[in-house]
Parts: sequence; structure tokens; C-alpha cells
Amino acid sequence: MGEKIIRINMTNLTTSVEAVPEGLMALGGRALTSTIVAMEVPPACEALGKYNKLVFAPGLLTASAAANSGRLSAGFKSPLTGGIKESSAGGTAGQKIERLGIKAIIIEGMPKEDKWYSIHIDKDGATIKEDHEYVGKGNYELYKIIGEKMGKNFGVLSIGPAGEFRMASANISVKDPDGNVRSHGRGGGGAVMGSKKIKYITVDDTGGPGVTIAEPDKFKQQARIFAKALLDHPVSGQGLPIYGTDILVNVLNEAGGFPTHNFRRGQWEHAEKICGETMHDVIVSRGGNPSHGCHPGCIIKCSQIYTDSDGKFVTSGFEYETIWGLGGNGLVEDLDDIARCDWAMDDIGIDSIEGVVTISVAMEAGILPWGDGKESYRLINEEMRNGTPLGRILGNGAGSVGRTYGLTRIPVVKNQAIPAYDPRAVKGIGITYATTTMGADHTTGYAVATNLMRIGGFVDPLQKDGQVDLSRNLQIATAAVDSTGLCLFVAFPALDVPECFAAIYEMINARYGLSLTANDVVELGKYVLKTEHAFNQGAGLTNAHDRLPEFFEEALPPHNTAWDFSGEEIDEFWNF
Amino acid sequence: MGEKIIRINMTNLTTSVEAVPEGLMALGGRALTSTIVAMEVPPACEALGKYNKLVFAPGLLTASAAANSGRLSAGFKSPLTGGIKESSAGGTAGQKIERLGIKAIIIEGMPKEDKWYSIHIDKDGATIKEDHEYVGKGNYELYKIIGEKMGKNFGVLSIGPAGEFRMASANISVKDPDGNVRSHGRGGGGAVMGSKKIKYITVDDTGGPGVTIAEPDKFKQQARIFAKALLDHPVSGQGLPIYGTDILVNVLNEAGGFPTHNFRRGQWEHAEKICGETMHDVIVSRGGNPSHGCHPGCIIKCSQIYTDSDGKFVTSGFEYETIWGLGGNGLVEDLDDIARCDWAMDDIGIDSIEGVVTISVAMEAGILPWGDGKESYRLINEEMRNGTPLGRILGNGAGSVGRTYGLTRIPVVKNQAIPAYDPRAVKGIGITYATTTMGADHTTGYAVATNLMRIGGFVDPLQKDGQVDLSRNLQIATAAVDSTGLCLFVAFPALDVPECFAAIYEMINARYGLSLTANDVVELGKYVLKTEHAFNQGAGLTNAHDRLPEFFEEALPPHNTAWDFSGEEIDEFWNF
Repeated sequence: MGEKIIRINMTNLTTSVEAVPEGLMALGGRALTSTIVAMEVPPACEALGKYNKLVFAPGLLTASAAANSGRLSAGFKSPLTGGIKESSAGGTAGQKIERLGIKAIIIEGMPKEDKWYSIHIDKDGATIKEDHEYVGKGNYELYKIIGEKMGKNFGVLSIGPAGEFRMASANISVKDPDGNVRSHGRGGGGAVMGSKKIKYITVDDTGGPGVTIAEPDKFKQQARIFAKALLDHPVSGQGLPIYGTDILVNVLNEAGGFPTHNFRRGQWEHAEKICGETMHDVIVSRGGNPSHGCHPGCIIKCSQIYTDSDGKFVTSGFEYETIWGLGGNGLVEDLDDIARCDWAMDDIGIDSIEGVVTISVAMEAGILPWGDGKESYRLINEEMRNGTPLGRILGNGAGSVGRTYGLTRIPVVKNQAIPAYDPRAVKGIGITYATTTMGADHTTGYAVATNLMRIGGFVDPLQKDGQVDLSRNLQIATAAVDSTGLCLFVAFPALDVPECFAAIYEMINARYGLSLTANDVVELGKYVLKTEHAFNQGAGLTNAHDRLPEFFEEALPPHNTAWDFSGEEIDEFWNF
Repeated sequence: MGEKIIRINMTNLTTSVEAVPEGLMALGGRALTSTIVAMEVPPACEALGKYNKLVFAPGLLTASAAANSGRLSAGFKSPLTGGIKESSAGGTAGQKIERLGIKAIIIEGMPKEDKWYSIHIDKDGATIKEDHEYVGKGNYELYKIIGEKMGKNFGVLSIGPAGEFRMASANISVKDPDGNVRSHGRGGGGAVMGSKKIKYITVDDTGGPGVTIAEPDKFKQQARIFAKALLDHPVSGQGLPIYGTDILVNVLNEAGGFPTHNFRRGQWEHAEKICGETMHDVIVSRGGNPSHGCHPGCIIKCSQIYTDSDGKFVTSGFEYETIWGLGGNGLVEDLDDIARCDWAMDDIGIDSIEGVVTISVAMEAGILPWGDGKESYRLINEEMRNGTPLGRILGNGAGSVGRTYGLTRIPVVKNQAIPAYDPRAVKGIGITYATTTMGADHTTGYAVATNLMRIGGFVDPLQKDGQVDLSRNLQIATAAVDSTGLCLFVAFPALDVPECFAAIYEMINARYGLSLTANDVVELGKYVLKTEHAFNQGAGLTNAHDRLPEFFEEALPPHNTAWDFSGEEIDEFWNF
């Protein structure tokens, strides 16, 4: 395939170009980053130490003509969870890396001196430069300056102040086509990048080999089937493009699974004020853009440009989970307040899911009043941005706040914040939170789809029956999709439409001249999960960590269902 | 034996008196607290949640006529380490509990309302009282008020503000005969007591059954042998009484194992300013008391009354590890500054080992300058006492500071601070730090004795050979001694003098009419370690947690030895 691996050694400040080992040829995205991390990183090492590595890999279809093929995977040992982490993002860097013929970028070691660096990647490889100029700056300003200096055609991966402070909720940000911020959000990749003293990485694909397709006709045919399925499905073709992911506020609230007041209730009487329908109307009335793609080739366009009442840009990539976390969970009723917090987290480089749950745990601790959107913004934009003691507590996530203040009502699994779906009212997602190798993460096995939206079948959300199998099947499929470089939202049509699912592996076949079957996809997913699980066990995680916090024993109104899986029932997950 | 268990349920605010189950009859101290915790506490539960329990148990010889039989064990799941914890203390409470015929006190549950309570224990059992009067007060003031109100003859167990804030370094304090503070220091027992909303426990042994001896003549004879051995041994008979534990400054510094500048060097050029010999002279010149016992019946008297230049009380129980942590490790040269910090930690109720290592990690983070004793005091006495955000970070220990500031040079094992003996220059103690069930704790297997003082034989401190066996043998013996209620310092003569060792189990035999042998002592120690280890495994700790931090790979001057045990070599420890 003629692709290469770029290795960047931050201890010696050297870079090299390596051939792709035979065994890694058929891997991409999450399968590749998790394999390299498992091969090269000692599982018990310190996540912010010299033995951890930061690996970037486009997926098997990234930058191809397939719709929504814009994802880049970042892999590392997580300073938040203590386990392996893969976090994927859109934006423009992934496609440019792929077009340079780069299968993976491996960043290892740590500088001996307390200096900052930037990295530039182009057709000739990677160069490291001592670079203190932008240290302390937020992502939005950084992208603006880089755009002015280097032109808009560069891909940029960067950290904000949170990553510089090595906060465990720091993400790795990615410039989108318009200079907005996308994120390798979860698990503290920004802290790992910060520990290696890299402020930003620019990618210029000029003169690169581009993407070659082994069987172009077949690829085109399958890509058409695939795109049509995306556009025809009610979720990827209508719900997400019109309302963004915030369409889920009403879905979850109606289902009684919308965690409210730090997971005390499953419905919020003010949901209407922050729901996707309201957001859509607000954006349209203010002249913003309700439907925006985070990377070239996206046809779902679930992002948006959210503006204030003067029509000025406030934020972009304004997601359901972020809106939920300050809204229902923190009782903040003003969508504009939440939007400003979202911008600040993007700018500082904080995972917005971890960030919003952190704020509600801070409310639990009495650090700020429930529902106070203005103080939420101040905590993020002043305390966290400036790395004050309180800002450091917050910047290290929900678990950090809970531990530091001696709380017990801390919604985390493996120290990662539980997102916007209550596991007592959507029990399949609870199994995903408990068992995924990633710490609480809805995206790794989105049982909400089958529990609530009847996508890919139906499993009653309030019963235990079938949830472990559902989560296992979804986690296996998701691990495979995360390896393709396709946006995960393609899973909605893929779960419902057999030809759409087939089109995914047939596009891979056409791209590389392979003959994968549906079974190979399943085997790939299993391989990824088992590789990650073995890493986590070596890192000291056990089935004692595959559990939800104790407070989920409480019944959740309105259904008054509790989390009632035994440890043995949860542990069935790994029987495959 | 006619003894009883007092059970205190803080959820229902009820107390009960139970017979001692047959299987617990022969256990005391650590063996008993660890057994009860292992039996009754789900290992994976939240340490500050309702399923954790706080267990107090006197040892098998506590309150007998044996010299130095004043120890009380506290057992619980640790909020600091996440594993089981036993922490013993002197003071007067243990002997009074034993004289009431109480084998153990089990405190369980959590109040449903946000109210504070005190508990009173006397011959009729335990009573719980809502009690907000002393909330926020330090231990010294609390003991003074209780002494004035109730008389001096009460035993008191209490928490300071640190325990109220549920800080993971909060200890459980114990009043000594003169109203000074002793501590169940390590592992955050104060946070567990605080989570159960108990500010203090008073113990009145008036009218209690006292201690009955099955074979009084035999007991007296063995107690004489035992006391003579303590007085004759150079460590327990001379070194500790005259200089206190601070005698170790020169021992460790000369051996190159005195961790300096956060474990960067093994010797400190200013050690003379803080060593035991200097402290002795300072105390004597100021009219303090260099030799003071923490409980009635102590004949070692390693404590002291440290006064200022006006002869006013500054602190008591001023230990080597505390002095080392601010002194060598934090480069603070003024012993008076260190003494004030020691008092403040006792008053606030903070484990002073965790506290001083926390301060040096705070220096590493740039929170205060190296060597700044005045700012150290301010951080402890203002920030920690008042529970400010910075105070909370500090109050949760060295690991908390390190994680919150994204550091890698964090001297902890299982999140508990490594004390005053560098594992690269005293390798046996390194095996103890790595393997003990307690998190880094020198007292669980004090290989320093054999590595440096040639007590109980000699194993070269700079070589790997023999260290695992040494640490294992010492940890087994220590687990047994921790079950007797004897001060651990009796181990110095017991390791050197066979009749002294025999006297310990012969006194137990005479006390209870048993016929234990030396082998039974070893089997008891093994049982304790295995019980604790099984709990820890259930709590999610694995051999990945039986490791020292990565930075100990660095060679330590002056010997330039590194920590060079492989994981496999360390794991040999558990092969018994």
C-alpha cells in the first residue's frame, strides 16, 4: 500500500519515517492506534511520563470519496482512566494525514528541558521546532493566527491551556474547514500531548500521494449506496442535519432517561428551553447556520454555527451531551449561557462532556449554585483557563472534584464522566458505561439507539434482559466502525439497512483490493476490544472497575427503576 | 473470654452490643480489624460511602501489665489507597476500650441528614448524640474543652477539620495522657469517620470489667523478661528514649538514604540542623521534655514536649518522618518551622507523613518555594484548615497534588506517600513499600532495621539479594505484632533477642490461657497479610499497583544506585 509511519521522538527531538510492518497493514483508526499502544506502551506506565505514546491514525477509509470519511483516531494511555484510550475527531487533519500516505504518527518520549515545541508534517516527513510563541493561547486564536500566517489549507492539531497544564480533561483540538474547533475529546489526550510539550501540529498535504483506490468502479458504486442510505435514514438524513445531536433532549426527556440535578431525576421540566427544536429556531432566527459539516465530505452536517442575538459567532459543534450536562444535570436554563461555556471549553481545550459533568459535580460540592450559568462560564473561562487551584481541580474532571471534596455522588466510571443517558432508564447504555475499555463513554456501544429509537431492533430500556448481549454486539461493531475513519453516525443507517452495512466493508475491499466479509468486520471488532481489554488489565484495571457508582442503586423517577445488575451479570460481557 | 462487640449504626442512629463470634475470639488489633473489614465491607465499595465501616480494636495485650501495651487498631477501606487499611495509635482510648471488655467497635452506615454526632462509650455500651458544638474545632482545643467539661480521665478519638472535609489524608486523632494528640495516622481514617458524621468519641472505662489474666504468675514473669529486653536494647532502651525517632536523621543521612529535594539525593548537607541530637539539645536548653510516653505503661518514651524559645509548648509526638519530609525532602532548615507545621497537622487532623510529602510535591509543582517553612505552615494552617480549593488539593495528599498539577515526580505507592527512607539506598524498604497491602508504609516491614542497623541480621541495603525474603519475613512478623496491641518498637529487641520474641506470645498465652508457639505467630501474620491482600484484589488492586513510581529508575547520589527490581522479582513476595 506504500504507506508509512512517522515516528517523532521528543526525548531526542528526532523524527523518522518507517515502513508499515506487515501485521499493521490491514488496520486503521482505532484498531491501529490501540494495536500500536498495546505493542509499544508498557500498560502500567505513568500516563504523563516518558513511556506513554501518542498515536494518530486515519481510518481505513479516511479521505476517500466515501461520505463522512473524515475521522482521525488518537490513541494513548489515558491520564484520566488509567487505561487505553482511543478518541476520534473530525476536522481536516485526518484527511490531510491520509493524503500524505501516512498510516500512523507515533509521538514518544519527553523533552529533557522545559521548552515548548511545534511539529510540522508534510510530504517530506515531520520536523520539530522549538516554539513558545503561542503558549497560553486558546485554540480559536491559535487557528486564526496559523490561518493568517500559513494559509487556511493546513490541518491543525493543538492543545489549549488545559493541555499545557496537563489537566486530565484536556482534549486534542482539531481545526475544522472554517477555523472552528473539533476535538479528540475524551480521556485527556491533550494532557499527554502537553506532557510531551507539543503545543500544536500542522499538516500540509501539498504534493502528497493522495488516496489511491484499487477498484475505483466498485468503490464508486458502493459509495453511492452508502451515501443514499445516510440521506434516506430518518436520523442521519433528517434529525441530525436539522436539529443537530441536540434533538436528543426531547427523546431522552420523554423516555425519562434525561439525567437531571446530578442524576436525581430522569426528566426536566425546562427541557424545552434547551432542546434541539428550540436551538434550531434560535439559530435560524439569529441568522446562524443550523447545519454545518466538520470535515469535507460530510453529508450529515450535524454541527452548526450558533450565534448570539447580534448574530455574532458564539460556538460551533454544540452537542447534545454538552447542552444536557449544564442544562438538565446542572439546571442551567439559558441556552446562550451553555453556548458560551461550550465555546470556552473548546477554546481552552477541555472535553466538553467531562467539563459539564465536572460543573454539576462542583454544584454538588457547593462550589457554585445549581443552575448558575454565568458562574459556570466564569469557572471555565477564568479558573480553568488560568490554572488556578480551583481551575486545576475542575480541569482534572468530575472524579477530581468529587474526590477533592470528599463526595460520593460522582457520576464516573473508571474516573471518566458518565454522559447524558441515565443507565437506570436506558439500561443497555449502563452496560456500555460499565464495560467499555474507555471509561464511561456512550459512543463505544450506543445502546440508546436500540433501547429508545428502535434502531437495529428493540430491547426494552427498563429491563435487564438482553442488555449485555446488545451492548456487546454494539461495542464490537463500533470498534470496527471506529477503525474505518467514518463518522460513527453512519451506524444509524448501517444498523437498519443491510446494504449500508455491507457497503462499508465493500468500500474497504475496493479501496485496498481485499475481500473482507461481514464476519471479518465482527472479528476485527472483537480483536480491538480484546486488545484494549488486555492492555487495561496490565494497567491494573479489573472487573471491580467495570461497575457503576453506588448511587445508581437509588430508583430514578419517573420510572423508579434502579441499576440492578450484579457484578456477575456485568462480567458476562467479556465472555466472547 | 466474656468480651463483646459494640456495633454503631449511623444510618439508623442505633447501637447494639453483640457477643464475639467464635472465629474472632483469638484475634485482636490488626488481625481483628482486617478480618472484620474483610468479612463485612464489600471490597469494591466507595470508601466514603455507606458500605464502608470503621472498626476499632485493641490488641491481644492492650491494657495488660505488659510494657508498651497501649495500642488501638483502626481498620477500614481507605479513601486514599482504595485498599484495606489498618492504622494503630497510642494514646489512652485503646486501654480504656479494652478495660470495658470491648473487643471491637464497628461503626457502619451513614446518617441520612447532614448533621454531626458524637458517641460516648462506657460500661453500659454506646450512645449517639447529635452534636454540632465542636464542629470546625481543632483537636487541641477539643481535648481541652472535653477535659474541662468531662474531666481528664476520658479517652477521646476525634477528627479535626480535615476529617470533617473528608480529606484523604485526614487521620483519627487520639488524646494522650496529657491532652496531646496521637494519631491513627495513615490512609484517611479521619475522612471515613467524617463521612459517618462523627466528630468525636469519648470513652469512660469507669466500672468496666478491666483486664483479667488467666495465668497471672506466668504473665508477670514474661512481662519482666519483656520489659528488661526493651530497656537493654540500644534502640528501645537508649536511642529512642533520648533522641526520639528523630535519631534516624543521621542514620539515614550517613547511609545515603535520606531523601532530599523530593527524592533527588540521598544526603542533605543541612541534616545537622534537624537531627535528633540537635532536637534533644534544643528541647533540653528550652526546658521542654525530651522523653515522653504516649500511653500509660510506655517505657520507651520516644515522644517529647517540644517548646519554643520562650519555653511554650509547640508540639508533641514530633517524629523523624515528619521532620524529614519538610527538612530534607522540602529543604526546610528551621526545626521550629517544622515543629509548628507538626502541631498544625495534629490539630487539623492530618497524617503528618502524608502532609509533609504533600508539601514537597507542592514545592515540585511550584505552589511554594523549596525550603519555605513559613509558607509551608501557612498552607497547612490556613489553606488546609479552612478547606480552600488549594487546601483541599493538599489535604487529599501527595498523589492529589501530583495528579492535579500533572506531575510525574510523585513519591507514592497505591496513592499513599512514600516516607523517609529512599528505596534505592535501602532496598528492603522499597520491597515493603511496593508490596504491603497498606500503600507505601515503612512500619509494615521495617527493613531499615536489618539493612542499616543490623537488627535481626544484615542484608546489604544496596543489593537486591535477599530483600524480598527480608521484607516478607518482616511483614509477617509485623502483622502479628500489630495484632498484640504492643508498640511496634518492641520489634527491635524482639528481632535481636529470642527470649523477648518468645515473651510476646507467652504473655498472650498467659493472658488468655492459650499455648501458642512461635509458629502460630508466623501463621497469624501470614493469615493477616493474605486476608488483606484478598480484600485488595477484590477492591481492584493488582500487582500493577505493587510498583514504585517510574522516577526511581534514576540513580540516587551518593551511591548512584537505582531501583532495579523487575515486576516478576517483586511479585515473588506473595509466594507464601
